[in-house]
Amino acid sequence: MNDVMWKRSLALFAVALLLVLGGCGQLTNSSSTASTGTTSNRKVQTTGNYSTTGYNSVVTEGHYKTSAARGVAADYANNALDVKGMETGLMQLSQDVFSPNKYTFQEGQYISAANVKNWLGRKSKSNATGLNPEANGSTDPDKRVPEYLGTMVEQDYMTGSGSKLSLGGISIALGMNAVDYYQKEQYGATFQTKVNKDKQLQEGKTMAQEIVDRLRAKNNVGNVPIFVTIYSLAEQDSLVSGSFIAKATATGKTIDKWDSVDQQSGVLPTVNNQKPINSADATAFNNFKTQVQNFFPNLSGVTASVHYLDGALTQMTVNIQTQFYGQTEIMSFTNYVASVANKLLPGNAPIQIIVSSVNTTQALITRNSGEKEFTTNVLQNY
Amino acid sequence: MNDVMWKRSLALFAVALLLVLGGCGQLTNSSSTASTGTTSNRKVQTTGNYSTTGYNSVVTEGHYKTSAARGVAADYANNALDVKGMETGLMQLSQDVFSPNKYTFQEGQYISAANVKNWLGRKSKSNATGLNPEANGSTDPDKRVPEYLGTMVEQDYMTGSGSKLSLGGISIALGMNAVDYYQKEQYGATFQTKVNKDKQLQEGKTMAQEIVDRLRAKNNVGNVPIFVTIYSLAEQDSLVSGSFIAKATATGKTIDKWDSVDQQSGVLPTVNNQKPINSADATAFNNFKTQVQNFFPNLSGVTASVHYLDGALTQMTVNIQTQFYGQTEIMSFTNYVASVANKLLPGNAPIQIIVSSVNTTQALITRNSGEKEFTTNVLQNY
Repeated sequence: MNDVMWKRSLALFAVALLLVLGGCGQLTNSSSTASTGTTSNRKVQTTGNYSTTGYNSVVTEGHYKTSAARGVAADYANNALDVKGMETGLMQLSQDVFSPNKYTFQEGQYISAANVKNWLGRKSKSNATGLNPEANGSTDPDKRVPEYLGTMVEQDYMTGSGSKLSLGGISIALGMNAVDYYQKEQYGATFQTKVNKDKQLQEGKTMAQEIVDRLRAKNNVGNVPIFVTIYSLAEQDSLVSGSFIAKATATGKTIDKWDSVDQQSGVLPTVNNQKPINSADATAFNNFKTQVQNFFPNLSGVTASVHYLDGALTQMTVNIQTQFYGQTEIMSFTNYVASVANKLLPGNAPIQIIVSSVNTTQALITRNSGEKEFTTNVLQNY
Repeated sequence: MNDVMWKRSLALFAVALLLVLGGCGQLTNSSSTASTGTTSNRKVQTTGNYSTTGYNSVVTEGHYKTSAARGVAADYANNALDVKGMETGLMQLSQDVFSPNKYTFQEGQYISAANVKNWLGRKSKSNATGLNPEANGSTDPDKRVPEYLGTMVEQDYMTGSGSKLSLGGISIALGMNAVDYYQKEQYGATFQTKVNKDKQLQEGKTMAQEIVDRLRAKNNVGNVPIFVTIYSLAEQDSLVSGSFIAKATATGKTIDKWDSVDQQSGVLPTVNNQKPINSADATAFNNFKTQVQNFFPNLSGVTASVHYLDGALTQMTVNIQTQFYGQTEIMSFTNYVASVANKLLPGNAPIQIIVSSVNTTQALITRNSGEKEFTTNVLQNY
């Protein structure tokens, strides 16, 4: 072989390597920029970003910067699913504004726990900063003024690198009540005032502008973009989280144009003969459920939660409850579930299948975005 | 380029592909031979093999062939960790005798529940097949005859393909008591007779030969190889499972040469100032634990179970209990744990890190054999 031919061969070799490495998915994604130095020379570090959609996160002197306000805000949520839904969803929506390639994630640091407590309350003599309107004295569901704002989440997005991180942007989610639960007397029965989507949007937009004003007035926030979103909270007994309905960015003092967000969440199989969000996905899930449920003589439940953004499936989480938990039984079952999932569950969307028995996770079967096949993990907890 | 050179280039290309595909681990393993047809033309199918160490398993008409004896045998184990340890370990040891490339796994079908119940009992007038010796009437810990055999596991390995699977081999694990717990009177206090390893081996080997004889006498077993193993059961309150101590194969009527098995299990950090099984691994774990524990203000526990075969780490399972469970907190923490694990935990061995809060699994961070980097999964359970 002469020189030119060798070079051609090598080029062919390199192309082969790249093509195949590209197909390794997860494995190559994992090569991250994480720094986990034990010395305190670099006081600020980041966690590394191993997930497909995630950000690096800020770590200061080995400690995670937790949000002081989270505990307070979470207590205000009527449905625990909403807390996870708002946190995950706000991070997902923020990616279009603050790219994970450029920004590092930090739990909200600018709205304090005291702020959250006061802002979520009604405006009154003793609470001048309350974002919910003053009560009008009525206890009639349709005549009283409801509390529109139920809870809120702040997330910060940092720019720079190493120990020189500075605030690059703030994301806010306002959780608006679809139902405002209230008592006519302390410890009395609970009554409901419904709030329709138009009213949620109207009140949310006004409050969002007020929050932007208050943030701009704070030290150190300056003129960074503030991304604001409106989330419609689920009812207390809902099996699924609520959903985001609008988003906008304030690059200066006032919020620019609002865009609607088409997010939907549901459970499969649907309850009370409800129409599924996407009937093809529901059929696929039902076929999967049928094949999986026949595997063991006794399998107590196969359910799924599904999340859609602009009509596209963004996450499916399947929960399988089984009473069997021999280690080899779980190993065989996990392999079987993965093969049925590969064949029947919808393509392209990230899917997690959680196998539990006796309230303990036994196995996890996952496929991330862009991956073709499911990966299995049987928990080796012995 | 002439023909010869083209062939050389193509060979180089093929080698590159093979090398890199080999490195893809999980993902390429997933292209399995699973059949999940909905029609019943093929009555016997297999689960597919998605795990790195696993076998295909037998599925008959969509149903998993469970072991009738498992429930009975598991009830006899004093420590639940032993049940998982025996099942997983027997499958691992069986790989050297019944290669996963050639054999399909099936839960034990030849020793019935009634067999197990009788065989695990003492020999007596009413139980002629009891493998444990007759009682001698003494209740003194050192003078009485203990029950040596505590529990047992059977696994079947099938050959052939499609619907034409037939028995190719049987694996047996005999769980021998290191401590025999007994009462002097019904509902009375519990006393202990210790059984040393030499005695466990001696009794186990005799019982193994007896079981081989009984299996050979059964219908349909014929002359398939029978792989027998002796497992030393853990004490009741042990934090780790027991371990396999000997193995042998009976290709004909009598068991061939016995080989000792050097399996050890332990917990990290060690308790009561015990010396760890491998001090380098223990140091690595402690460094990992220190870095991880500083992350959140309050992290309730970081422990690990470790398993060794012939001195080499075969499995490390790390359990992290945290009181934090904001979804973004868990996402950040998971990324951080993966980066610290990549840097500090021992290489080459499969490792699972299970992050839990409020008794619910929140995230799983894994690296299988042959993989370089950890893969993260934050459970999207909302």
